[in-house]
Amino acid sequence: MNPLATLPTPTAVVDLPRLQRNIARMQAQLDALGVKFRPHVKTTKCADIVRLQVAAGASGLTVSTLKEARQFFAEGHTDILYAVGIVPNKFEAALALRREGCDLKLITDNMAMAQALGTFGRANGHRFELWIEVDTDGHRSGVAPGSDLLIELGLAIEAAGSTLGGVMTHAGASYELDTPEALAAMAEQERAGCVRAAERLRAAGLACPVVSVGSTPTALSARALPGVTEVRAGVYAFFDLVMANVGVCAPEDIALSVLTTVIGHQPEKGWAIVDAGWMAMSRDRGTQRQRHDYGYGQVCDAEGHVLPGYVLTGANQEHGILAREGEADPGIVQRFPVGTTLRILPNHACATAAQFPQYEVVTAEGALREWPRFQGW
Amino acid sequence: MNPLATLPTPTAVVDLPRLQRNIARMQAQLDALGVKFRPHVKTTKCADIVRLQVAAGASGLTVSTLKEARQFFAEGHTDILYAVGIVPNKFEAALALRREGCDLKLITDNMAMAQALGTFGRANGHRFELWIEVDTDGHRSGVAPGSDLLIELGLAIEAAGSTLGGVMTHAGASYELDTPEALAAMAEQERAGCVRAAERLRAAGLACPVVSVGSTPTALSARALPGVTEVRAGVYAFFDLVMANVGVCAPEDIALSVLTTVIGHQPEKGWAIVDAGWMAMSRDRGTQRQRHDYGYGQVCDAEGHVLPGYVLTGANQEHGILAREGEADPGIVQRFPVGTTLRILPNHACATAAQFPQYEVVTAEGALREWPRFQGW
Repeated sequence: MNPLATLPTPTAVVDLPRLQRNIARMQAQLDALGVKFRPHVKTTKCADIVRLQVAAGASGLTVSTLKEARQFFAEGHTDILYAVGIVPNKFEAALALRREGCDLKLITDNMAMAQALGTFGRANGHRFELWIEVDTDGHRSGVAPGSDLLIELGLAIEAAGSTLGGVMTHAGASYELDTPEALAAMAEQERAGCVRAAERLRAAGLACPVVSVGSTPTALSARALPGVTEVRAGVYAFFDLVMANVGVCAPEDIALSVLTTVIGHQPEKGWAIVDAGWMAMSRDRGTQRQRHDYGYGQVCDAEGHVLPGYVLTGANQEHGILAREGEADPGIVQRFPVGTTLRILPNHACATAAQFPQYEVVTAEGALREWPRFQGW
Repeated sequence: MNPLATLPTPTAVVDLPRLQRNIARMQAQLDALGVKFRPHVKTTKCADIVRLQVAAGASGLTVSTLKEARQFFAEGHTDILYAVGIVPNKFEAALALRREGCDLKLITDNMAMAQALGTFGRANGHRFELWIEVDTDGHRSGVAPGSDLLIELGLAIEAAGSTLGGVMTHAGASYELDTPEALAAMAEQERAGCVRAAERLRAAGLACPVVSVGSTPTALSARALPGVTEVRAGVYAFFDLVMANVGVCAPEDIALSVLTTVIGHQPEKGWAIVDAGWMAMSRDRGTQRQRHDYGYGQVCDAEGHVLPGYVLTGANQEHGILAREGEADPGIVQRFPVGTTLRILPNHACATAAQFPQYEVVTAEGALREWPRFQGW
């Protein structure tokens, strides 16, 4: 019997062989490119999974919240990059972590915070390590690699009393691409911009030892990374339908799915209703403008085999609408009787995983393990 | 000083006077209509808030998961409706609750589950109470009020060994309306369909004592509810931008907001970057196809006053992009300096609240309280 048949639904299921394959693939890619790999733990927020990443060769972590830093420091990880611009209401929490022995690095892209952090550090007799966020694709935060501000910021960080530890960038615009050529070009753009920023800072007399780049698509598409010292990526551990559309994985590589049960039908509409709504799948519609719009997720059987053409076309809080893409299926009731167990692949693994307090992990032998994850800030 | 200034960000903030006003408004409306009010607790998942609802006159709860039933039963609530179609992998959990003294009611819209629950009940020497879900607006689950299936189902429930406790419907299609006339008509459609279903079941010799209807828009728009015994609604406690667009509240009534801090800018684009991304706001874009698209939320100052024209136009996991609607604001840096505290009103309160393990509640006097909520199934 399928071990999942005993679980209540909805449940977040992790396919351990797929997870391990994804982890090994990224590590092999970055080992071959000769760079350190600093995984982003915001996707899984799970100590058991991070242990697998480190065992595979990862070194240092990237976090998106200070809660992640706190939790993973408690698990014994010390080299941690908090990759969201620091602000004063987080100074105390960052200081506490560093005083306890966490080698926490912070980032900024503006003079106000370079000054404020230095002032706060001096007032507390502490020297922070601050990195400059560089904008290499125009999608979010960061200073331009060729800007005067970059140099002013580097000098101000040191003058204010912090250490300039490096530069970092994230080419999130890579999520909008879907050809190997465009992805390789974006990886090179990300690399070149960040290396240029570091070289300009060094020419201004600053050490800037670290050059940190990354996103799952660019990390897997980079052909060479001269000048880069480390790469960051997160969603690759699970992968998801957005990444399948980008072209860096197949649906069969996706390690996270939501186990669900058929609870009813609307036969004339060709609908089966399942107990995975947006509370389980999240509201993420990341495939909406990609080459294949999977609605709220791709339907698989209970063993995880994709059932082509069947997706969640709609979602309420605890109800999902399962239908065939295109033409309605007149045999929906017979195909998916009430009580049928299914698995749904998510658009965006980071968002779907965040809806659950734990993962049910299925091993290669079909055994089940429960791995907790955490929520909040 | 604003008491919120001491909090880390992002944080879910509840304005207690607004919450209490919203609770009082719904209770007064349903008292005037002469029906029992059974609030849906899926929005807040918070014992402290449910206590306020019951203190105001609510009687019985609606839940969307058996975890909610378990948690609120532990808080002393016994009359609980689980308003998602029951399936066999939840029979044991439902039985356990009922044997412990929880007056838990279940729902279905199909013969397979009417039979299966009755069979399970008999095998365990237990008589369940099962309600029939009726479809009055075509948006999701339920049987048609005039269908043969309705009567077959009613008879099968009793024959299989359960008690037919009533009929229930939810006119979720009301979320797509935005005029008082259309909302009143939908409320009447919901009422008439559900009452008709009950009358047909009674004509077939079944008791069917309960007639349960509701959604926040229809509950607030109904002019008379003859034949209805109880109403359900959930999001009204907080309200949100979707409900403001529907027309049943003003933005100034919204009791839930996300406290956030400006962490940087992209001045040429007219962007401020804040530390509330989709992890805090949720991915819900419920206003996207409504009369006013608020992006990922409406920006307010730290005291909660709406700043007209400023919204979150984009969101990454822990980054929100704050911009002016329409034309870029060339003065964005001066208007919202780094470190500025803001509050963001959510598109959909149920989805945004679910991202947080607790609420920071601000009283009329400006005092702060922390109220926990729970996650998962």
